[in-house]
Amino acid sequence: MAYELYYWPTIQGRGEFVRLALEAAGADYVDVSRQDNGKAMMTLMETAATPSFAPPFLRLGDRTVGQVAAILAWLGPQLGLSPNGDSDRAWLNQIQLTFADLVAEAHDTHHPVDLMAYYDEQKSEAARRSKAFREQRIGKFLRWTEQVLIANPSGPDWLVSHHLTYADLSLFQVVEGLRYAFPKATEAVLNTTPHIVAVRDRVAALPRVSTYLKSDRRIPFNEDGIFRRYPELDG
Amino acid sequence: MAYELYYWPTIQGRGEFVRLALEAAGADYVDVSRQDNGKAMMTLMETAATPSFAPPFLRLGDRTVGQVAAILAWLGPQLGLSPNGDSDRAWLNQIQLTFADLVAEAHDTHHPVDLMAYYDEQKSEAARRSKAFREQRIGKFLRWTEQVLIANPSGPDWLVSHHLTYADLSLFQVVEGLRYAFPKATEAVLNTTPHIVAVRDRVAALPRVSTYLKSDRRIPFNEDGIFRRYPELDG
Repeated sequence: MAYELYYWPTIQGRGEFVRLALEAAGADYVDVSRQDNGKAMMTLMETAATPSFAPPFLRLGDRTVGQVAAILAWLGPQLGLSPNGDSDRAWLNQIQLTFADLVAEAHDTHHPVDLMAYYDEQKSEAARRSKAFREQRIGKFLRWTEQVLIANPSGPDWLVSHHLTYADLSLFQVVEGLRYAFPKATEAVLNTTPHIVAVRDRVAALPRVSTYLKSDRRIPFNEDGIFRRYPELDG
Repeated sequence: MAYELYYWPTIQGRGEFVRLALEAAGADYVDVSRQDNGKAMMTLMETAATPSFAPPFLRLGDRTVGQVAAILAWLGPQLGLSPNGDSDRAWLNQIQLTFADLVAEAHDTHHPVDLMAYYDEQKSEAARRSKAFREQRIGKFLRWTEQVLIANPSGPDWLVSHHLTYADLSLFQVVEGLRYAFPKATEAVLNTTPHIVAVRDRVAALPRVSTYLKSDRRIPFNEDGIFRRYPELDG
């Protein structure tokens, strides 16, 4: 039985964190909205027994799970992308939720005062929010992540335990997104966090991930997604 | 062995979602920062084997877990506040994460452009963000929650299954917070969501919760927390 991923069809967005897990594990899945332009997604948002407030959500049989971190906590053990044991899984979940906070803050850099209005309608507010994000948040988040890698008792190759988990895939995506949206500010931090860069490169070199990134299943970054390149916001 | 809760000592904030779970279950816990004014918390932020990006975090023996939804997913089964079964737990986690999104948006109403600056330094931006939150978000979140209650196959008394879970406690807190911060806008929505109001009242009437709410362990809402009463933001 194939997983069905439901997300907006033209952006990486939050769906990408789930897509990367499915791709890295070689899971059988259908990216439904890219085939029907979101039609089934809009229906299921209302009619699923466990309705989602927003995409992405993942379906397997009659089971539907939404919210990225909840999807990954549920999916990880099925795909071999979670460690064993409640303690390590709680830690993995905590790391993933911290990345989720970073992603939400990255989104708010271009939509600080009105989620439903265009960026052009909040450009000066976006400039101020982005300055704070660049100067106070990117470094703080990435230095914390670097410390997590350094402190891993199994070594700094992966975030949790001695093998790949879904959080490593998400870290890859966070780095790619920050590099796209805030290239100057991000590179300045990454120059001081070599273990993060090594994880990013290790993930990119995984055969299935590498194949995926070159395929047309990987939607390019664009200015409708969460990570947007507006050069004026990179300082 | 007692749980140790670490959070800012003078606000409900995100710590309250964990505190309510501990109180409702009658768990043995110490609210550490209220005894040492946050001293041990600041140390543990750095030195824990699994360091937290931000408070709250909860400690049991040498195990430390941060991020509210991760704490509750880990704690719920220990306290009898989670349903059995991976599917129901994933659904519970999804609901909790949706509440977390609402809480983050409520926070951003008074800090839309700079998390580290004062409200007074971003009042006009806060007014705009609050208008959008009142008009587009409170109703959307609460209507989704009402639908979750109505669609619960075990009946609308609780969010998941036929008994209290940590998400019901969090819903209580969300309702109290919204009523405090946006009394007019919130009451207008709650008039149309009777099942939410019933859950809120059911939680408030639980003997342990009722005792807690009257105790000095419940910190009053104030203008340093997440839910703040700035009348000008309630429209």
